[in-house]
Amino acid sequence: MAAGETITIPARKGKAVRVARGQGVKVINTHGEQVVDTWAFNAEDLDEFMSMEHTRPTLLKIMADVGDAMVTNQRRPILTLEEDTSPGIHDTLMAACDNYRYGLLGCTEYHDNCTDNLYAGMQELGLVPPEVPSPWNLFMNIPVLEGRRLDFCPPVTKPGDYVLLRAEMDCIVAFSACPQDMLPINGVDATPTEAHFEIVD
Amino acid sequence: MAAGETITIPARKGKAVRVARGQGVKVINTHGEQVVDTWAFNAEDLDEFMSMEHTRPTLLKIMADVGDAMVTNQRRPILTLEEDTSPGIHDTLMAACDNYRYGLLGCTEYHDNCTDNLYAGMQELGLVPPEVPSPWNLFMNIPVLEGRRLDFCPPVTKPGDYVLLRAEMDCIVAFSACPQDMLPINGVDATPTEAHFEIVD
Repeated sequence: MAAGETITIPARKGKAVRVARGQGVKVINTHGEQVVDTWAFNAEDLDEFMSMEHTRPTLLKIMADVGDAMVTNQRRPILTLEEDTSPGIHDTLMAACDNYRYGLLGCTEYHDNCTDNLYAGMQELGLVPPEVPSPWNLFMNIPVLEGRRLDFCPPVTKPGDYVLLRAEMDCIVAFSACPQDMLPINGVDATPTEAHFEIVD
Repeated sequence: MAAGETITIPARKGKAVRVARGQGVKVINTHGEQVVDTWAFNAEDLDEFMSMEHTRPTLLKIMADVGDAMVTNQRRPILTLEEDTSPGIHDTLMAACDNYRYGLLGCTEYHDNCTDNLYAGMQELGLVPPEVPSPWNLFMNIPVLEGRRLDFCPPVTKPGDYVLLRAEMDCIVAFSACPQDMLPINGVDATPTEAHFEIVD
């Protein structure tokens, strides 16, 4: 995609984009408390994709720091976290939400969800993901307590905070502005909002 | 499978078994320091499988305790941890090892690995897994330090320690006796050994 334009990830919805090797994607938490589920697939071979469970043993960390590269299920760098104006809390532990999840939380009708948003975002590019990898949940605040317990907490970001991700290969990057409105993961008001991204050279 | 027989998971290799709903699988760390990567697939629909990233938000824990059920990518219980004679350290964070991993560790020839062992174990039953889910790494000791850092540590189990997993649906359970011999994950001697399992009613 050409650099410069700012693209909206609509509230509760998904969006995907082609990114050339060497380009950057600036992902902006426009309103400050929005989690953005993020996936990346090798543009030449969608069966190779960014993998949280392959990145953790590579980094020996739960979360990436600036300078770290996220790797694929073939253990190759795909996106490097080049800049981060937020406090650096980006979850790698939790699956994308799905309609099953909202059903268990008490929802009796269809609920927008990040899993379906991945499919919808890719479909706009004429693509179908081969599976639903565990996403990189940008800005999502899941502390690990006493080495074992987890909690769902509001983001610690402020409006306009962004991460800059550098593509290490030609890739498709997909986003979902998480529609979770039954837990405080998108802020204590539980109000999903839009977010934005921009391709930079 | 009929109850009672003890089956060997050969050192460095994989094995899979059909387990009926209500049956248990006793997974035995025969020699005491062997990690056993474990997968479970719905026998009626292999696209539904035990998922670490769906289990963590369900349990709000990094690791299951006795009484907890591991869930599928449809958020349904598939295996319940019914008994555990070990200290209860069973990793959910790390991908199965693969040939890429051993290449990065310096191996110049093919190395047995848990990913290929999943395929080989399922193939003996005439099945092909639809993808390689992140495994439940029984007996694998990956501490989370200061809420963020990870480490590869030797198991804290002793010979004969076992877990009893109860099947919550008809399923295919696959195991790999992890062939990792370049890190101390199977003990400080880095010597992969066999393990065993037994189906119980």
